[in-house]
Amino acid sequence: MRTARRRAREGQNMREVGEEERKVRAALTRVVEPGDETVGRWLRQTTPEHLVQALAGERDMPTGVSKEKFEGLRLRATRVDLWNKAAEDLAAIADLGGRFVCPGDDEWPRQLDDLADGRPIGLWVRGSANLRMWALRSVAVVGARACTEYGAHMAATLGAGLADRGWTVVSGAAYGVDGAAHRGALAAEGATVAVLASGVDFAYPRGHTDLIQRLAEQGLVVAELPPGDHPTRSRFILRNRVIAALTRGTVVVEAEVRSGSLVTARRATELGRFTMGMPGPVTSGLSAGVHQLLRGEAVVVTNAAEVSELVGSIGDLAPVQRGPVSARDLLDPVASRVLEAVPARGGADARRLARDAGTAEEVTQGKLFELQSLGFVQRCGDVWELARRSAAVAGSRRGGP
Amino acid sequence: MRTARRRAREGQNMREVGEEERKVRAALTRVVEPGDETVGRWLRQTTPEHLVQALAGERDMPTGVSKEKFEGLRLRATRVDLWNKAAEDLAAIADLGGRFVCPGDDEWPRQLDDLADGRPIGLWVRGSANLRMWALRSVAVVGARACTEYGAHMAATLGAGLADRGWTVVSGAAYGVDGAAHRGALAAEGATVAVLASGVDFAYPRGHTDLIQRLAEQGLVVAELPPGDHPTRSRFILRNRVIAALTRGTVVVEAEVRSGSLVTARRATELGRFTMGMPGPVTSGLSAGVHQLLRGEAVVVTNAAEVSELVGSIGDLAPVQRGPVSARDLLDPVASRVLEAVPARGGADARRLARDAGTAEEVTQGKLFELQSLGFVQRCGDVWELARRSAAVAGSRRGGP
Repeated sequence: MRTARRRAREGQNMREVGEEERKVRAALTRVVEPGDETVGRWLRQTTPEHLVQALAGERDMPTGVSKEKFEGLRLRATRVDLWNKAAEDLAAIADLGGRFVCPGDDEWPRQLDDLADGRPIGLWVRGSANLRMWALRSVAVVGARACTEYGAHMAATLGAGLADRGWTVVSGAAYGVDGAAHRGALAAEGATVAVLASGVDFAYPRGHTDLIQRLAEQGLVVAELPPGDHPTRSRFILRNRVIAALTRGTVVVEAEVRSGSLVTARRATELGRFTMGMPGPVTSGLSAGVHQLLRGEAVVVTNAAEVSELVGSIGDLAPVQRGPVSARDLLDPVASRVLEAVPARGGADARRLARDAGTAEEVTQGKLFELQSLGFVQRCGDVWELARRSAAVAGSRRGGP
Repeated sequence: MRTARRRAREGQNMREVGEEERKVRAALTRVVEPGDETVGRWLRQTTPEHLVQALAGERDMPTGVSKEKFEGLRLRATRVDLWNKAAEDLAAIADLGGRFVCPGDDEWPRQLDDLADGRPIGLWVRGSANLRMWALRSVAVVGARACTEYGAHMAATLGAGLADRGWTVVSGAAYGVDGAAHRGALAAEGATVAVLASGVDFAYPRGHTDLIQRLAEQGLVVAELPPGDHPTRSRFILRNRVIAALTRGTVVVEAEVRSGSLVTARRATELGRFTMGMPGPVTSGLSAGVHQLLRGEAVVVTNAAEVSELVGSIGDLAPVQRGPVSARDLLDPVASRVLEAVPARGGADARRLARDAGTAEEVTQGKLFELQSLGFVQRCGDVWELARRSAAVAGSRRGGP
């Protein structure tokens, strides 16, 4: 039923995982903490079904699983009556007008796969937009909860400016910079996504109950945790990896030297995303963390145009078109960068492309094969060049409006 | 007589150019504008003596000299009665307790030779310190004349902090950032050098008459123009190249997007010096130029420790020693960086050293030969390694307190 409704909304047939796997994954989000890489590894070695059946006592424990850890999860599973709770959770998200998006669904943002074994088991989503499409052109704006007037002003201005340029503003719905960034995007009637460290119906902080409600209506509210679940300290930290992985880059607006925003920014760098910082007065402790970041991996940005130019593809140098999504827009950020590094005339080897795209050679090699299979590039010995069709597309993009 | 006094001051015999050449060069500073690269080229093709004798009408024009330009200079020379004026200027600088330092003098800062044909013909200097020794460990702090309270505060704090760390603070004695940087260094009883766009006895701006007097007493006041000469718009711009070339790096504290400070910073980059910027509020037009620079070649710095760590040698990572100057300290910044790139064990080829030192391969090659002649490095085929004596020095520096 939910699926039927969803298909109607999308107006097309979408690829989705089976109802059984969705229920199994929903059940897992109830017992497994976000970002648990051990369980992530188990899920590669066995099936989610087998794991949940074993947790429910219906099957033996899969091989290669540490007994102690498994027993801990089983205890949690017994307490909540796993299968019934999963059915309840799926009903609850449907009642909220939402859905539970899993790897394998068309709506799954494939860039999250870069988190490897730390990839979310699934994402609980509220809001009518397609998460995958929105996340393709998204930027995270994060920063201090106790920000200054300056930080709030800059975050709101940046949120609005990015939204105006067709970027989705992703943040964590916290007080301070997060809230200002979401509000800026909403005010510009743009796309914005809140990634929560609690269930999508658990408004935290309380003072942002109205904001989170508005985000669910006009934007998207996303969480790894099932409906009703509450945030914890570690959940905030682990939530940050989803923000970093979902977006093409992260901008930090005000942050003290030891702060969660810097964790998000560093995760972004590790994941090969762009890391940016909005400078402020050196005399402000709330800019000290940003400046520290800027002395390392991050790039100075002072407005939305600079962010857009940096994280965008070549077309973003020109005024942005809000046209239909092209095949090229569906590429993940790393693949996009590799593709953009391929020269318009002639070709280059993987080593040079890796250097030009700023990606590891091994990653580049993998992305090149992916791009080849999608028909973007072709290979002549060691040299990669644009496939003829793609060259035409690239040409038209470069010559944009 | 001047020379005798100077030798007494230095307490040692110093290498100096002959009195005749000094007078000739002094005469040239009266008729040639600072940074005139055509005259710089002439001086490579002929001798300063020949050029001045020709300007005084005592000899034919040297070959390879454009007649039109030469006649222009000759007209200026006739007006001032060149030889007498040069004698007067040298007497005037002596009366000011100063001297006219020429290429070939021991006090000549050899890093100015990086300006090639734009190298100053000589420098008029007031103050008792040795310009060359002070400039070895110097940083330029420049910025807006009409700076904000924030800019003035940061410049003064930076000037004091650099002085505390044994760095000489070089600036242009202008209102705003320049003055604050000098004052900060003076307040810390540190070394500071003002490079003027006028004669060293021509206080500009008028409001800085007392400051420039104090700089001449406690620091150094330096100019390419002879005593009494006044500043012009182009002289300010050309003065900036001396500030950039004299120092190991330039820090810009507040600058609008089109400003002289950015010219200095870009010259510093071109000359292979470090370029740094002190960030500020994005909402301030006086930080916009700095942020623009930070999005390009410049590095974010927020305090003197960061500047010192960046432009200093490895020893500056540890608390700075104010010990006697070692042979290594006498190297120019580029040679120092090349030397520091040579690994403590084994060796590396010029290409790798160029990459590690961040210098052009051709420059690196030249510096390696220079370092070889000074006994710092030795060569085995294509591989350069530390000379045994130097390895011991490097080791002791790395292990320093």
